[in-house]
Amino acid sequence: MAKALPVSPLAPAQFPDLPVIGGVRFATVAAGVRYSGRTDVMLALLDPGTSVAGVFTRSATRSAPVLDCQAKIGGDSSGGAAILVNSGNANAFTGQRGQMSVTELTRAVAEVAGLPESRVFTASTGVIGEPLPHEKIIAKLEDLTASAEAGGMTAAAKAIMTTDTFPKGAVRQVEIDGKTVSIAGIAKGSGMIAPDMATMLSYVFTDARVEQATLQRLLAAHADTTFNCVTVDSDTSTSDSLMLCATGASGVDATSDATFESALHEVLLDLAQQVARDGEGASKFVEIRVTGATSDADAKTHAMAIANSPLVKTAIAGEDPNWGRIVMAIGKSGAPADRDLLGIRFGDILVAEKGWVSPDYSEAEAAAYMKGQELVIEVEIGLGQGKATVWTCDLTHGYIDINADYRS
Amino acid sequence: MAKALPVSPLAPAQFPDLPVIGGVRFATVAAGVRYSGRTDVMLALLDPGTSVAGVFTRSATRSAPVLDCQAKIGGDSSGGAAILVNSGNANAFTGQRGQMSVTELTRAVAEVAGLPESRVFTASTGVIGEPLPHEKIIAKLEDLTASAEAGGMTAAAKAIMTTDTFPKGAVRQVEIDGKTVSIAGIAKGSGMIAPDMATMLSYVFTDARVEQATLQRLLAAHADTTFNCVTVDSDTSTSDSLMLCATGASGVDATSDATFESALHEVLLDLAQQVARDGEGASKFVEIRVTGATSDADAKTHAMAIANSPLVKTAIAGEDPNWGRIVMAIGKSGAPADRDLLGIRFGDILVAEKGWVSPDYSEAEAAAYMKGQELVIEVEIGLGQGKATVWTCDLTHGYIDINADYRS
Repeated sequence: MAKALPVSPLAPAQFPDLPVIGGVRFATVAAGVRYSGRTDVMLALLDPGTSVAGVFTRSATRSAPVLDCQAKIGGDSSGGAAILVNSGNANAFTGQRGQMSVTELTRAVAEVAGLPESRVFTASTGVIGEPLPHEKIIAKLEDLTASAEAGGMTAAAKAIMTTDTFPKGAVRQVEIDGKTVSIAGIAKGSGMIAPDMATMLSYVFTDARVEQATLQRLLAAHADTTFNCVTVDSDTSTSDSLMLCATGASGVDATSDATFESALHEVLLDLAQQVARDGEGASKFVEIRVTGATSDADAKTHAMAIANSPLVKTAIAGEDPNWGRIVMAIGKSGAPADRDLLGIRFGDILVAEKGWVSPDYSEAEAAAYMKGQELVIEVEIGLGQGKATVWTCDLTHGYIDINADYRS
Repeated sequence: MAKALPVSPLAPAQFPDLPVIGGVRFATVAAGVRYSGRTDVMLALLDPGTSVAGVFTRSATRSAPVLDCQAKIGGDSSGGAAILVNSGNANAFTGQRGQMSVTELTRAVAEVAGLPESRVFTASTGVIGEPLPHEKIIAKLEDLTASAEAGGMTAAAKAIMTTDTFPKGAVRQVEIDGKTVSIAGIAKGSGMIAPDMATMLSYVFTDARVEQATLQRLLAAHADTTFNCVTVDSDTSTSDSLMLCATGASGVDATSDATFESALHEVLLDLAQQVARDGEGASKFVEIRVTGATSDADAKTHAMAIANSPLVKTAIAGEDPNWGRIVMAIGKSGAPADRDLLGIRFGDILVAEKGWVSPDYSEAEAAAYMKGQELVIEVEIGLGQGKATVWTCDLTHGYIDINADYRS
């Protein structure tokens, strides 16, 4: 990241006012891993009894910290836990040295925070293939631990940014049994975004009490319909990590509470959509809804083929209602489709039905719609009941600018 | 195509001198399908006894002409055959009206050329979803048929261009049984290029005699290692067509001749690579060789994941030896890989081995290599004997320019 990028035009109007989540404290520091003049490490300290769930990239070349976290998820958390994240260097494809860095970091955090190593989770994001200068981070751990405070989640959101043009946070609060339960989270990610999962790191915290196995099941299920439904460029990171921590500090058990689950979904979706809204070079946010496929999985295959098509994405950037490219993307997706049953809408505008342009279709009207910043593309496959919705952004000169010059 | 594009810097120095192929005559005309001031229709008339083979897009939304050709391939050709191709309009996603256009065109060609309709093949390339003004083409058929001549293949290559910045032709001549056998072909295509097949039309002609079923088998096999190994943007056209016609005019039967097969492969590869060299906005031609995969199919999966990755392609455009993105692409491909066995070379430069950067690696040396216009990226997976080579180009501002403004 050679220079500061302008904030995405699709960014939310403001960063949300994140509440204190009882049972978790945050600290950040500028360790100089790669960037100068900004924070690049965050530490979250979780009280004893916190359930910790996580889902991670399925990349065959996943990073050392991801492998370490995956091995630790599901363990006993009666002694508390910690999450340490650095930006600037992904510690990915760094061989045995990368694993050694993870070991050094987790050992050092465990020592300073008085935790077992098995409850220290780490993540690294940034450039791949360069050794992580973990000693720079370790040198700051005493300060980090000492300065951890309940109100530090917003600062944490900033410390984990890489090519992000805005920090990402989301919050929902619900009443359960007459008490307020909060769910708040942060995320980073703007390129190398595609399932599984969107390239990103995201950390979500709640003061509800949720039993560990349930928390893991909830996170996996809702990651599939949120983070795994956003794509910027079809490229999947080696470091993707999404963690959910339930401290139980509210005293409310939400293990099987539908209100809680719904709020959790909203927080995850909000964060996931913010990642797409910060897609590198994005000028338009696009929701793609596919209905009538032979199954939900086939609907998602079609939706992702549309969302990842460079020709569709450049047409959107050019504000061109080029629905022929939608047809092309459906055709190549590999999921069943029948050309002569397809229906396509841009927003409320019926573009095509039964395989051909609608008699009422007005190109001028569609072109006017495409000038909007928030677009909806609906496709009816006409074969069954399968449906899926995914979110993406357009492909612009900004993407080329950012990615042809990332390391220089 | 709003404006003329500059010729790709990767274009061959000159169009080859295509020989006359006995048994086939060509004609072209400016029918005004969409473009003005240029030819947009080509007709090839094949003598009786010509074997005709074809492979086509597997898109679920393939165009009406593709469906028509697929139904006709393999039929008796004792009465000759004809191929009619227009540019400017793909006659794809045009519903029943599109099929009617094909019927009208094939009927008209059959009548003018004195052929059964079952031996008239058509193709259309250009904008999707708009009705083909087939009457404009039909009005020119008498002139086309009357003007058909043996030496017209170069003019045909120009008539079928859309966003191509140069016409594409290739030729090989071999001696079989003391006689010269020629194989010559033309192609178009520069965007919406990915298997199956590269978006393109290609027509290859030989004066060898090859029995129909063998010709079809040969074409299918060699399309898989040539046209199905090039990608520009991962997008697959609804119109891709590759046809091979063997007139037998040389009097040489090449049905089971290895020299002929090898020459055919070279012609197909030459044409396929020219398509990648004309990739929309391309500034670099990239060969990606994957070895050591668990199977040839897995090697191709890895190679295509690298070739289609927007992050890899933009790094190449930026002349950045960002091998971490190669690792990312291998990781997401879905084919087996082990991070700690990977080896990567840029040209002769060993970048990474056994999962990490080589001790002798010089970023400056790699950066200097990346400034070249013809690049080779080699990946050793380290798991088996599977191998594949694919060809692609970089992703530049030029691609965005062309595709954000194609219809306007």
